[in-house]
Amino acid sequence: MISEKMMGFVKNSSVIRAMFEEGKRLAGIYGEENVYDFSLGNPSVEPPVEIKEALLQVINEENPNLVHGYMNNSGYEDVRETIANSINSKFHTAFHLENIIMTVGAAGGLNVILKTLLNPGEEVIVFAPFFGEYRNYVSNYDGKLVTVSPNTVDFQPNLEEFEKVITKNTKVVIVNTPNNPTGVVYSEETIKKLAEILNKKQKEFQTSIYLISDEPYRELVYDGAEVPYITKYYNNTIVGYSFSKSLSLPGERIGYLVIPKEVDDYEDVVEAANVATRILGYVNAPSLIQRAVAKCLDSKVDIEIYNRNRELLYHNLVSYGYQCVKPQGAFYLFVKAPGGDDKAFAEAAKKHNILIVPGFSFGCPGFFRMAYCVDYAMIERSLPGLKKLAEEFGL
Amino acid sequence: MISEKMMGFVKNSSVIRAMFEEGKRLAGIYGEENVYDFSLGNPSVEPPVEIKEALLQVINEENPNLVHGYMNNSGYEDVRETIANSINSKFHTAFHLENIIMTVGAAGGLNVILKTLLNPGEEVIVFAPFFGEYRNYVSNYDGKLVTVSPNTVDFQPNLEEFEKVITKNTKVVIVNTPNNPTGVVYSEETIKKLAEILNKKQKEFQTSIYLISDEPYRELVYDGAEVPYITKYYNNTIVGYSFSKSLSLPGERIGYLVIPKEVDDYEDVVEAANVATRILGYVNAPSLIQRAVAKCLDSKVDIEIYNRNRELLYHNLVSYGYQCVKPQGAFYLFVKAPGGDDKAFAEAAKKHNILIVPGFSFGCPGFFRMAYCVDYAMIERSLPGLKKLAEEFGL
Repeated sequence: MISEKMMGFVKNSSVIRAMFEEGKRLAGIYGEENVYDFSLGNPSVEPPVEIKEALLQVINEENPNLVHGYMNNSGYEDVRETIANSINSKFHTAFHLENIIMTVGAAGGLNVILKTLLNPGEEVIVFAPFFGEYRNYVSNYDGKLVTVSPNTVDFQPNLEEFEKVITKNTKVVIVNTPNNPTGVVYSEETIKKLAEILNKKQKEFQTSIYLISDEPYRELVYDGAEVPYITKYYNNTIVGYSFSKSLSLPGERIGYLVIPKEVDDYEDVVEAANVATRILGYVNAPSLIQRAVAKCLDSKVDIEIYNRNRELLYHNLVSYGYQCVKPQGAFYLFVKAPGGDDKAFAEAAKKHNILIVPGFSFGCPGFFRMAYCVDYAMIERSLPGLKKLAEEFGL
Repeated sequence: MISEKMMGFVKNSSVIRAMFEEGKRLAGIYGEENVYDFSLGNPSVEPPVEIKEALLQVINEENPNLVHGYMNNSGYEDVRETIANSINSKFHTAFHLENIIMTVGAAGGLNVILKTLLNPGEEVIVFAPFFGEYRNYVSNYDGKLVTVSPNTVDFQPNLEEFEKVITKNTKVVIVNTPNNPTGVVYSEETIKKLAEILNKKQKEFQTSIYLISDEPYRELVYDGAEVPYITKYYNNTIVGYSFSKSLSLPGERIGYLVIPKEVDDYEDVVEAANVATRILGYVNAPSLIQRAVAKCLDSKVDIEIYNRNRELLYHNLVSYGYQCVKPQGAFYLFVKAPGGDDKAFAEAAKKHNILIVPGFSFGCPGFFRMAYCVDYAMIERSLPGLKKLAEEFGL
């Protein structure tokens, strides 16, 4: 009696659920410390201490009706102003509170903006490999997902193919950098070329193509990598941000959209996004945590912890013969599946109690994702199994 | 360039926005204390002190990765178990954690369950007057809203008409008791008759008709009124609850769905609701506040404050000649519009700096809603204007 569309969603979700169940099953047999779960992108580093201090300050010092009450659907004005100023000082932009809509995480923000923009059948282009939930978000509003095939050399987007798949029905392009699942940061050169293509195509088709930059991993970068702020390169850019990873607050569901005044039909987009926030049932981003994160915009988790994991896992994998682009961001490695069949390799890994996600779920078969936001010691314990796997597959 | 559907939503929303702007305009001219805004259902009573204590306890004593981290999309298991036990002890039910899904307020819960159940074109029956957002929630999933006309004698639902409008395409019926905008509590007799009709029609059409009980005002009742727990009267009942009003936490977006094991296709419904929570972008209800409300299930705001407002406003309105059913719940009065034209009356009220919501927006023209979750002193100050208005309209 559930809806037919939900039947499909439930069916697809059962793959992830099955992996989760398998992990629990293995832990039951072999003990939790002998199962190596690299399947979940769940931040393991503690939130910075500033978050606790900010929460206590808000709870102890501010008016409870303000802290827990309704505000504008787009969020507290002072919070939005503080965030706009923080972005401006970091990226030399010129945003005001009107450009910021507080959202229920980046997932909430993406849903709000897709509901705002999409008519049924309009096309949304994503670059493989991509975060699998984009499929569902686009389907929520009856959009049509168009996938650009992966550039498996360095996982920068395949811009030649991109240019070819843009049509007059292209309404949205989603980029995600630092990227899940590859960890790769799109270079400034990539962003410039992307913008050039989009501008050309907008002119050609006399349409507006909105570029949504999904940036939950913006703060998680290594080796001093720079992540270009995309609104500066392409006018029709809308940014979706989340504090889930930068402050290790994924359960709190707090993030924001940036809608620059330069986007086409700016006022309609902002007002519709405000209304979409309400009618999708979010109503507003959770209030107390809005006020707390606004006090912590210069804080972030200790990424050296993730960096150590990255170095340990990457160097050992490569020494065993695995092939992998060394990523500069996020907390994932995207590794070529020995033998070429990612599902078969994931099955073989399970026999060593190693849980990984096959690349097909990111639209990129032949690879697998390892999330290294786990205990360093767990990575160490998993290495003999990873080495044996490499040997089994003749690396 | 926004979607056509959103164009319509934005247009409708501009009515409420216009009222809000008008209030600000009037406050600018006459001073804030001389404008009497009865238009918003925004809880004014402070959260009970237990909420602050619970928040501090969770923040100071629990593991931050647990408190702010991901959990199952349906919410923390211990929180859900505690809530199930609390409902059981209050209403002699037999729920377990599996029956509870934590949601982003009641609005989030309604969206989750409507997405779970509705195929495009399936019918959702509501009883006028009804919370106007139901229109949008049903439209989100391309359902068809079917309105039962109001029973303006006592605002119990019009069950004769209800029986006639049920068809084989009826998938959902929404009830909201205590009711927004009338404040009326549906009697046990009403619920029993409603259940009887639904059971008869399910048999006749060989269908499943889900009754969604939207209960954000359950705890806000006066005169010792009892609000029947509807799962006990009709097997296919799903409850949507919110802590927004009972604990004055509307900004925090925290509530839950109760999906009893007796509902048709129980396991599919629960799994799909879990998936819908994820793919609608909620992912999960905000985490810290989940843990805090679970410690406050026996607390509620001081409703004597609302009760005093109710008595003051009701008795004065009646003494001026207004006609109004004295409500037993929520914080609204639904008053007959003198002259019969609710829009014209709302315009006339504005001239006395009194802001009210015309009944047409609740599907019930000829009446208007006053939200009395405001300062007692503001009600007192508004009385001369309300009296003059009555005289103008010849009451």
